[in-house]
This record gives sequence, C-alpha cells and structure tokens, in this order.
Amino acid sequence: MNKLNEAAPLVREAATPAAAGTARHGNPQALAEAVGAAMYARDPASQSLGMTLDAIAPGYARMSMPVRAAMLNGHATCHGGFIFALADSAFAFACNSHNLVTVGAGCTIDYLSPGREGDVLTAAASEQTLAGKTGVYDVEVRNQDGRIIALFRGKSHRISGEVI
Amino acid sequence: MNKLNEAAPLVREAATPAAAGTARHGNPQALAEAVGAAMYARDPASQSLGMTLDAIAPGYARMSMPVRAAMLNGHATCHGGFIFALADSAFAFACNSHNLVTVGAGCTIDYLSPGREGDVLTAAASEQTLAGKTGVYDVEVRNQDGRIIALFRGKSHRISGEVI
Amino acid sequence: MNKLNEAAPLVREAATPAAAGTARHGNPQALAEAVGAAMYARDPASQSLGMTLDAIAPGYARMSMPVRAAMLNGHATCHGGFIFALADSAFAFACNSHNLVTVGAGCTIDYLSPGREGDVLTAAASEQTLAGKTGVYDVEVRNQDGRIIALFRGKSHRISGEVI
Amino acid sequence: MNKLNEAAPLVREAATPAAAGTARHGNPQALAEAVGAAMYARDPASQSLGMTLDAIAPGYARMSMPVRAAMLNGHATCHGGFIFALADSAFAFACNSHNLVTVGAGCTIDYLSPGREGDVLTAAASEQTLAGKTGVYDVEVRNQDGRIIALFRGKSHRISGEVI
Repeated sequence: MNKLNEAAPLVREAATPAAAGTARHGNPQALAEAVGAAMYARDPASQSLGMTLDAIAPGYARMSMPVRAAMLNGHATCHGGFIFALADSAFAFACNSHNLVTVGAGCTIDYLSPGREGDVLTAAASEQTLAGKTGVYDVEVRNQDGRIIALFRGKSHRISGEVI
Repeated sequence: MNKLNEAAPLVREAATPAAAGTARHGNPQALAEAVGAAMYARDPASQSLGMTLDAIAPGYARMSMPVRAAMLNGHATCHGGFIFALADSAFAFACNSHNLVTVGAGCTIDYLSPGREGDVLTAAASEQTLAGKTGVYDVEVRNQDGRIIALFRGKSHRISGEVI
Repeated sequence: MNKLNEAAPLVREAATPAAAGTARHGNPQALAEAVGAAMYARDPASQSLGMTLDAIAPGYARMSMPVRAAMLNGHATCHGGFIFALADSAFAFACNSHNLVTVGAGCTIDYLSPGREGDVLTAAASEQTLAGKTGVYDVEVRNQDGRIIALFRGKSHRISGEVI
Repeated sequence: MNKLNEAAPLVREAATPAAAGTARHGNPQALAEAVGAAMYARDPASQSLGMTLDAIAPGYARMSMPVRAAMLNGHATCHGGFIFALADSAFAFACNSHNLVTVGAGCTIDYLSPGREGDVLTAAASEQTLAGKTGVYDVEVRNQDGRIIALFRGKSHRISGEVI
C-alpha cells in the first residue's frame, strides 16, 4: 500500500495525461492511485475538513482527519456528521478506485466510542462485494490508539462514465 | 410550531435563567425551544455549516442548510456527509428536545436524489418511539421544491444529565 | 381500506381474469387488491407462518401474524427472524401493490419491545417515496395492545414484469 | 473450528453439568461450544427451519440452511425473511458465545444475490467489536458455490444472566 498523504504530488501525477493513460491499461494499483489523486484534487469538502488520503488500492482507501474544535457538538465530542463524513469519503474513494464513476446509494453507521478534540481519526474502507453495478463497502473508523470509533457500511451504485 | 430561524434571539432567550426555569416546569414547548436555543449556541459544527434551527417542539426539530460550493464532491453534487450532517443535527435537536441529554447510537441514511449547489435543504426530524432510554427518530431531507433528497433513521440513547 | 383477511375469497377474485383485467385499467385500489390476492396465494412462506393480509392499497399493506411456540428463541421471546419476516412480507406486498414486479434491495430493523407467545403482531407498511425504480417503505410492527415491537425500513428495486 | 452439525451430540454435551462447569472456567472455546449446544437445543425456530450449527467459537458462529420450496416467495426466490432468519440466528449464536445473555438491538441486511430452491446457504457471523454491553457482528451469507447472497450487520445488547 503506497502512502499518498501529500496532496500536491497526487495532483501532479493525475494531471499527467501520459501517466493516466498508462494507469488505465493493465495496472490496477497505478489506476487507483491516479483516480485517488484526481478525486482528492477536486473534492473541496474532504479538503476543507482536513482529511488526507493516506492509501488507496483497488477496492480500498484509507483516509484520516484530525478532530478540530469546530467539529465538536454540544456534548464536547465530535459531531457524528464529521465522523460520518470521514467514513463516507473513504467509502467514495474506495468505490471509485476502479475508475468507474460510482455513487453512494445508502449507508449505515454505528457509533461505538466518542471522538475527542485533537484525536486523529482514520477510516479504512474495504470492498466486501461488487457484482454488476452494486457494491458493498465496510469502513472502520479508529482513533490514534486503534480504538474503534464507528463502523460504517456503504452500498454503492455505479453510474456511467470514468473518473479520470 | 414557532419559527426559530434567527440564532441571536434564540441565544438570548436561552441565556435568561428565569426563562429556562419557567420552561422546565410544565411547558414542554417552551422547554424544547430553550433547549434548542442553548444547543444551537454551543454547536459550532452546525453553525459553521450554515444550518439554522427553523422549528423545534417536543420530539421534533426542523433545520435547513444551503448547499455551498465547498460542499460539492467530485461529481458536482452535495457530498453525502453534509446531507448526513444536516439530518444528524435535526435528529440531535429532536432527541434532546425533552431536555434529557441524549446521544446518537447509530443511524441509516438512504440517498434518493442529489443536492445541487444553491439548493436549500430542510431536514425534519420526528420522534417515532421513545421507551426507556432508547428512541427512534425519522428525518426527511427535502430541497426547496419539496423533493425528497434523503431519508434518515436515527436511534438515540439517553445518558445522564439535563441539557440546560 | 378493505378487509382482506380471508385468503380464499382473495384467491377467487384474483383468479377471475375479467376482474384482473378491470383492475389493471384505471382502478388502483382494485388493482392493489387483485395483486395482493395473487401474491398471497402463491406465497407459501407467509402462509405457513400464519400471516394474513388484512388490508392492501396502492403503496400500503397491513399483515398480521400470531406468535407461536415454534417462533420462540432461547430467551422465550419471538425470534427476530419471524418479526422480520412479517415486516418483510408487508413490505413486499406494499411495494408490489402497483402491479410492477419489485424486490427488496436491503433493509434495516430496530427491535424495540419483545414479542411473546400468543401475541398477535401487525405490520403496517407505507410507501415513503417512489422515484424511478427505487422506493423506500416504512413498516411499523405493533402487538395487539398497540405497543411498537419493531421499526423496519425497506428499500425496493423494481425489475421487469407485472405481478398479475 | 470444530464441526458441530449434529444436534444430538451437542445437546448431550451441554446437558452434562460437569462439562459445562469445566467450560466456564478458563476454556473459552469449550464454553462457546457448550453454549451453542444448549442454545440450539432450545431454539425450535432455528431447528424447524432446518438450520444446523456448523461451527462456534468465542465471538463466531457458522450456521447453514437448505432453501426449501416452502421458503420461496412469489418470485420463486428465497423469501428475504428466511435469509434474514439464518443470518440472525448465526448472529445470536456468535454474540451469546461468551455465555453472557445477549439480545439483538437492531440490524441491517443487504440482499446481493437471490437464493434458489435447493441451495444450501451458510451464514458466518464474526464479532467486529465488543465494548461494555454493546457489540457489532458482521454476518456473510453465501450459497454452496461461495457466492455472497447477503451481508448482515447486527448490533447486540448484553442483558443480565448467563446462557448455561
């Protein structure tokens, strides 16, 4: 699994038409990396929340996000929406990693432990099944100590088009 | 249902100890409004996303949020995490509206139509059942044309303490 | 809402080609009833579990089932699978009530109170949204005292063909 | 993983007080097997559906069930309720395998491929997390060819008491 947590090189790779062309033909890992770089570059939501794309592979993505003060809810723990957003982004990168445009159709999340200010949360999304246009992806969100914060399951639906 | 979509008056009301005291005794609607005002005042996440609390009542909350450019994903539609955050906030306000501190234990969301830049999304959360410490709340997210964007179901767990 | 809780008349109606023909043209309620009768007649699973179809209308179905001794789990309460089966059947009848063949794509259930031997559980399924091939249906399962036993949400997917 | 697919030996083991006593003290695998045998013996629902308990270990259970004609729905595929029941039973055995009485609080299922008459479905339930009274279990249901039929996620809640 390559480390991809610096946005700039990612973008540069993806912007190289030759590299993208190579990736499309016969190297699923290179294709996943190019797709990840391109998606991250045009995803202001994930960027503005401080998420980084730490690893991507066919059917897999890992992203992390520090819990900021502005993410706290009235109980001084991380608002569920931000934990969800991190899991949902990792899900999106994983299910688009094959370079076929795919959107979320629905998902469930179970919150198991609270996130605190200063925590760094990591979401690892893994493809469980992919048949026809429909896939199921499981995402584990853990904090810096490895404690499970949330479990997310997303169902994907492939639409037409390629990501890059 | 009162209109509560201006944050400043909400905060002012909640900051009046006498009003909060009155609300606690025998007027569930006044209590819900005071709780809503106090929760909103100390919820930087919902505020920074541009959410407003438009209505609150015992077991009910309605919030809205405009879809900004920074909320778009790589497919130029609203990132599911923000739709989720709106639904999740409405859920949080509804399930705390009785002034008993309550957190989300898990939820599901189904995305039915995309949100576009400039849309104003409204989430209406309604208590379906509340027994002991556990409740179930349904949230409908619609756009300005009344089109259903997402359906959310949240399960709540009451912990100790009062909100205000 | 017509009472349709006797299987025999239902089957007889559905078996009348003239009635089915009439139902198809311009009377959604008659069509829903004919579909319900036909589906019930060829649904050994629902029948063998003692379910009855008590009411059907476009986008709606209500079914009931007594909790038998053979349905109890190791904790002497109704095995979740049977509560689920009742909700799932009501969901199936509701989402096929328009006479377009529709299958379940996934669902969630939250158990809120146990079912006991001798209880009669009733599941009421209501269409929440239907757009293109995808619908969302909510099902409430209550016991004979009106107590909520479970909340179910099903997502449907229309495939090709008509039910009758 | 031991093979436990014959009900009689299971019951006999569980009925031996000495064996149960030994199992309670320091041998989690033996305890899980004794619990599984006892639960199966008093679970008429799983038995009457033809389910067998094929393997059990701490936090894990695997069960199988042939799809009978009586399990077919109006589309000639296995009624979702029976696929659910199999997954739900495997979930129940897995989450009670520590000998602490545990019930399901809710779950989700996604149907990925249909089950046909004569298929033998196998559900493998694995503990994902267990903290305090709450656990999350994932169940994969596959047919005899290894094809994924459904993915289930159950949330468990421990109540008081021991299973055996």
